[in-house]
Amino acid sequence: MDHTITAALQRATEHRRRFDARFAAYFDTLTDPAGGALDGPQHGRFPARALDLLRDLSLRGGKRLRVAVLNEAAALATDEAVPGLAEAAISIELLQTHGLIHDDIIDGSAVRRGAPSVPHAYRDEFPDRPDTALGLAVLAGDLAAFLSLRVLVTSDLPPDRAAAMAAVQSDAAATTVIGQFLDLERDFGPVPDLDLLHAVTEFKSTRYSVLAPLRLGLLAAGSDPAPHDGELRRYSTALGIANMLRDDWLDLFGDPDTVGKSLGSDIRSGRRSYVVRALLAADTDAAERTVLDAAPGDPQCDDDTLDRVRAVARRHGVDRSLQADAERHAREASALAGTWRTRWRADAVAFFEHLPTWTAARDG
Amino acid sequence: MDHTITAALQRATEHRRRFDARFAAYFDTLTDPAGGALDGPQHGRFPARALDLLRDLSLRGGKRLRVAVLNEAAALATDEAVPGLAEAAISIELLQTHGLIHDDIIDGSAVRRGAPSVPHAYRDEFPDRPDTALGLAVLAGDLAAFLSLRVLVTSDLPPDRAAAMAAVQSDAAATTVIGQFLDLERDFGPVPDLDLLHAVTEFKSTRYSVLAPLRLGLLAAGSDPAPHDGELRRYSTALGIANMLRDDWLDLFGDPDTVGKSLGSDIRSGRRSYVVRALLAADTDAAERTVLDAAPGDPQCDDDTLDRVRAVARRHGVDRSLQADAERHAREASALAGTWRTRWRADAVAFFEHLPTWTAARDG
Repeated sequence: MDHTITAALQRATEHRRRFDARFAAYFDTLTDPAGGALDGPQHGRFPARALDLLRDLSLRGGKRLRVAVLNEAAALATDEAVPGLAEAAISIELLQTHGLIHDDIIDGSAVRRGAPSVPHAYRDEFPDRPDTALGLAVLAGDLAAFLSLRVLVTSDLPPDRAAAMAAVQSDAAATTVIGQFLDLERDFGPVPDLDLLHAVTEFKSTRYSVLAPLRLGLLAAGSDPAPHDGELRRYSTALGIANMLRDDWLDLFGDPDTVGKSLGSDIRSGRRSYVVRALLAADTDAAERTVLDAAPGDPQCDDDTLDRVRAVARRHGVDRSLQADAERHAREASALAGTWRTRWRADAVAFFEHLPTWTAARDG
Repeated sequence: MDHTITAALQRATEHRRRFDARFAAYFDTLTDPAGGALDGPQHGRFPARALDLLRDLSLRGGKRLRVAVLNEAAALATDEAVPGLAEAAISIELLQTHGLIHDDIIDGSAVRRGAPSVPHAYRDEFPDRPDTALGLAVLAGDLAAFLSLRVLVTSDLPPDRAAAMAAVQSDAAATTVIGQFLDLERDFGPVPDLDLLHAVTEFKSTRYSVLAPLRLGLLAAGSDPAPHDGELRRYSTALGIANMLRDDWLDLFGDPDTVGKSLGSDIRSGRRSYVVRALLAADTDAAERTVLDAAPGDPQCDDDTLDRVRAVARRHGVDRSLQADAERHAREASALAGTWRTRWRADAVAFFEHLPTWTAARDG
């Protein structure tokens, strides 16, 4: 791997390491009467159990790229430690926890981040009460959502900083829900065009995962993001699309060992991913169409069927064209970040230049 | 009815009338590109439909007592128009909309505020896709939750005011979720003691319905609620318990025409309300216990069975003792509000004196 990319990843790893310790400490404060405690959990088992599940899911955190983007956005403006980054990072990851729990209800997913999903954990605990289990999972997601905004506005931050950050996060959160509606909508009606898929990517993923962390980082550093909003959006959109194209590509063409989950989930669930859309738009013959008509939406779709789908995709160049698209969007984002060198700090600019290249080439 | 209570209710009616117009205008701004619009709904049918459902449910608003408490709390400190009350009222009622939607998922309720509940509306629209319908209802509730906090921090309010209000609301929202966990928990295990029921009332209802509006109203009026927090809490707790006792009483002993829904829902669902707890704690004989053992938790429990439960309750004085408890808590709240006359405005103090008396005597 290019040593500049390695350097960017090392910075991300360091951000993650520091954040994970802060995040664990945050969960301790929620139940600690000495500071910042949430009122109520001491009264029953159910609230305490929900907080345990939120904590466990939140701390099984993955790469924490959102936290890296946040910290590097602050580093664009200053190399000094700035207040508010810890609260913003916790807010970002709690919003993610919220989204994962409610996503797992919607998709019926049993596993998340290598362990039982929260809805599934509750179903195991209440095998005879599926309604109670569902209700508890809905509430656990709600709790994470409110904590995500609470951590910003109940902090010791200057009020103008806290209000600006909460504006960014509440707007990103509402936008993400809009994106989840679009995500469900794309699987209805005719095969969606590329614009709808880009809109899903933008609203469901990019806004809260890239754009909001960029804005929050600059705000924490005391730098108003508004004058740069147009290019922050363009950077985020290009990176977001590259990232989603690569995700969709990996779901069919990746190596299951490095992807970390079984392949073909988009095919099985009938999700019209970038890959599935390209397949359905390809100029296939009758035999190929028989393969494609049968597979998407079949939860039982086995490895042999996936192999046949893969063969059709490769014959029509779907694998190469999607990867080329991902790389094109990544290059666009990198080039844009390169122009930031004239006004922002070089080491952070380099991070934002290299992040898209890594994203479009990652194995998992 | 006592003319002072009539005067208090007239003030509440006037607050509701003005608020309902503002609330409708707020929903217009969400889809109006000219101001405050939410980005994304223009991209698809599903987001637009969700906003329609949120609007319809939100505008079928009932008495809006939370809005009255908010406005009267501001009027404790000033008789001038103050900025922030409109945003706070919208935030309070959007949080209520969120809670109603997720409650209706948890309870499986088909009707809410005289029309199909949001989960049920989606089930009617997607009869063959119950998972999609559930997902859409979860998301609609999430959207209301985030909008509830967004309206405070994306307003033109001074940042310190916006941050302080968002702190109150996000804390109340998280606390309410804790209360909903306790609400589910009380229906498990042994019959709950009165302390657990009071905790459910406090966290699930009082904090966001009374205490938060009180705090938000004072904040909007430029008056720091912190020095008065102890007595605001005591007032809220007493009023909240009186209100919940009356609600539970009405569910068994009310007049279905004025209550506006079929009676006995707590009995049918097996909810351990104040009434059910008192029944189970009464010194009943074997025949009475047969009645009580069969009814709670039976969704088919008919009017004859309810009559038999009512007869047992009356024989053991459950109806009288619960009503007496409600009146005692109401008197406590009224007396506390009476002491506010020394430092706050008399007309608003009178409202807070009369509200508990009305609450503990209302018919629906």
